[in-house]
Amino acid sequence: MHPFFIFVKCELGKAYDVAAALVEEVEGVSEVYSISGPFELLVKVYIEDGQDIGRYVNEKIHALPNIKDTQTIITFNAFT
Amino acid sequence: MHPFFIFVKCELGKAYDVAAALVEEVEGVSEVYSISGPFELLVKVYIEDGQDIGRYVNEKIHALPNIKDTQTIITFNAFT
Amino acid sequence: MHPFFIFVKCELGKAYDVAAALVEEVEGVSEVYSISGPFELLVKVYIEDGQDIGRYVNEKIHALPNIKDTQTIITFNAFT
Amino acid sequence: MHPFFIFVKCELGKAYDVAAALVEEVEGVSEVYSISGPFELLVKVYIEDGQDIGRYVNEKIHALPNIKDTQTIITFNAFT
Amino acid sequence: MHPFFIFVKCELGKAYDVAAALVEEVEGVSEVYSISGPFELLVKVYIEDGQDIGRYVNEKIHALPNIKDTQTIITFNAFT
Amino acid sequence: MHPFFIFVKCELGKAYDVAAALVEEVEGVSEVYSISGPFELLVKVYIEDGQDIGRYVNEKIHALPNIKDTQTIITFNAFT
Amino acid sequence: MHPFFIFVKCELGKAYDVAAALVEEVEGVSEVYSISGPFELLVKVYIEDGQDIGRYVNEKIHALPNIKDTQTIITFNAFT
Amino acid sequence: MHPFFIFVKCELGKAYDVAAALVEEVEGVSEVYSISGPFELLVKVYIEDGQDIGRYVNEKIHALPNIKDTQTIITFNAFT
Amino acid sequence: MHPFFIFVKCELGKAYDVAAALVEEVEGVSEVYSISGPFELLVKVYIEDGQDIGRYVNEKIHALPNIKDTQTIITFNAFT
Amino acid sequence: MHPFFIFVKCELGKAYDVAAALVEEVEGVSEVYSISGPFELLVKVYIEDGQDIGRYVNEKIHALPNIKDTQTIITFNAFT
Repeated sequence: MHPFFIFVKCELGKAYDVAAALVEEVEGVSEVYSISGPFELLVKVYIEDGQDIGRYVNEKIHALPNIKDTQTIITFNAFT
Repeated sequence: MHPFFIFVKCELGKAYDVAAALVEEVEGVSEVYSISGPFELLVKVYIEDGQDIGRYVNEKIHALPNIKDTQTIITFNAFT
Repeated sequence: MHPFFIFVKCELGKAYDVAAALVEEVEGVSEVYSISGPFELLVKVYIEDGQDIGRYVNEKIHALPNIKDTQTIITFNAFT
Repeated sequence: MHPFFIFVKCELGKAYDVAAALVEEVEGVSEVYSISGPFELLVKVYIEDGQDIGRYVNEKIHALPNIKDTQTIITFNAFT
Repeated sequence: MHPFFIFVKCELGKAYDVAAALVEEVEGVSEVYSISGPFELLVKVYIEDGQDIGRYVNEKIHALPNIKDTQTIITFNAFT
Repeated sequence: MHPFFIFVKCELGKAYDVAAALVEEVEGVSEVYSISGPFELLVKVYIEDGQDIGRYVNEKIHALPNIKDTQTIITFNAFT
Repeated sequence: MHPFFIFVKCELGKAYDVAAALVEEVEGVSEVYSISGPFELLVKVYIEDGQDIGRYVNEKIHALPNIKDTQTIITFNAFT
Repeated sequence: MHPFFIFVKCELGKAYDVAAALVEEVEGVSEVYSISGPFELLVKVYIEDGQDIGRYVNEKIHALPNIKDTQTIITFNAFT
Repeated sequence: MHPFFIFVKCELGKAYDVAAALVEEVEGVSEVYSISGPFELLVKVYIEDGQDIGRYVNEKIHALPNIKDTQTIITFNAFT
Repeated sequence: MHPFFIFVKCELGKAYDVAAALVEEVEGVSEVYSISGPFELLVKVYIEDGQDIGRYVNEKIHALPNIKDTQTIITFNAFT
């Protein structure tokens, strides 16, 4: 299971509602942070190898209310 | 201890050397990923509350060879 | 027949519906991928030499629902 | 085996040399096109599932002469 | 009579209607092309020396339906 | 024969030398203008249908001295 | 009295109405030009030393109809 | 108590109303300036160490009317 | 005689030398201001109608030392 | 005395040296912060009303070693 990251831009004043919904309702979400910079939230997700990340973002993340935009960062390798 | 994230842009062909140096030589680094997008690496760092993040990036990260640019993302809250 | 590529930006949560419509309904479409980065889909199209690519995009692609924006990349030569 | 795409920006006047080197010398490269827009070349690569795309780009692509910059596009799903 | 160029961005699916209107209805338009890149149309216009280009764009081009944005390129000299 | 356009960015103070070289030395160049905006020159080129535009730009245009960057605009259709 | 400059972006087809309103109705406006580039108008304003430029733009300029955006350039010194 | 800064973009003609509301109604705001550049206001805020800056911006700043966008700058160290 | 404007970006610490050179040595320069924003200087130039602005910028302005980049704004009409 | 702000981008690993130099050597500097985002330092300066901010930045700030770029933000009004 490789993680990937999603930056989330929310409607004004809704970032903490979106963060709560991500943690409580979306399977695979392992960490959610409120952050500095142009996006309000950074989300770390673990999904099964071979699962379709595009479908996950399209159906699980974009389905939540008060999200305006997302940007996905794929990880290739975890160095340890 | 709150984490923060650093995106790292490396000299062409040096990203995996930089990743190895981050993991082996820099105190506080907890996760390093090679990633898609304009930066080659995403680094997660834990430092003591009250420590100076600016000084850490300036002295610990910028001191490594083959780094061209960095961008720091602060986390405000971790939702669980 | 030279191929060209179209990046497609879709309404939130509609990328997989658009992908299905491209594959099933639009003549000339040979490959559709969901992708990382600012666009959701990358489409490879083959049309007859001498056909008008601008008209094709305008009439075949822009006519589909749930598309917000497209960007077209022309290929000049295929190296083999 | 999922494909991924790499946009390549070359030194002025060297794009066709880079294209030839990609086709002849780099394992996994399946299609190379000269293209319109800010990049000169678009490359389609197939690597084994589970292989490290970051390492591939870092070691196989960035090692070629006359490349100034690259941008990688990951595919999640191929619609058919 | 010096020429100038106008890039035109159109509503989705309307570029060829706008192109037809430019050719048929707007005095001074000498060439209209559908093009690759972020704009859909490139227009070459000849107006009398001393005429007000700003007023021309404002009153002749912006008055057409289905135009979202324009960008004007002035020519200083034609080399021959 | 379809035309295409090339925007050219030149070394400071060399734009008129580049324009002269384009007109005198490069086959296929039909119009060269000095222009307003981020590029200094706009060039209109006619090449035979089926010729490789990428190779033309790479070998004929990029070979001239004092050019820093180029951007190519393809035309799909000429409206008349 | 130091001058400052304001770039004005107008609704499509309204730039010359806005220019006329600036000249006729807004105190302190000394020059208005229609211009090339992303903005339609460039305005030069003189206000008393010590007056609040932010309030002037907010109350005098933004109050006019058909303005979409403005950008203000402050002058520090006039060389003569 | 470390300060942080917030740039605020307001609805056209509302910047001085927003500035007044920030000074009068929002706890922790210590300085508000109208400024040059793409944002209209710069705000300096002091909050207790360990307080959640993301929640503060989300609940105290984004709740004010006539704000279109904000960008937050964190300070790491104050040099004296 | 219509005016046009040139924004000038200078080498660090050389903006006031460039401003002095513009005023003293370049024919046609009528106003030079040091300004806020990404450029250091704004220059207003008057040249004869029909003169070649591109040649003027290329030969008179780009010839000065310590200039890194320029951007030219053409005026179409002066409202009075 | 109105304050203004300067964002400073430093050579890699030199931000804290620049900060120390700003505090110790440059008259008028009242606050220096290391910050998140694309710039490393934010500086608040007070100079006498009527003094030339452009000259101050050009001669006092740009003269320091290890500075790559600066961006100046002028304040118009301080709300209290």
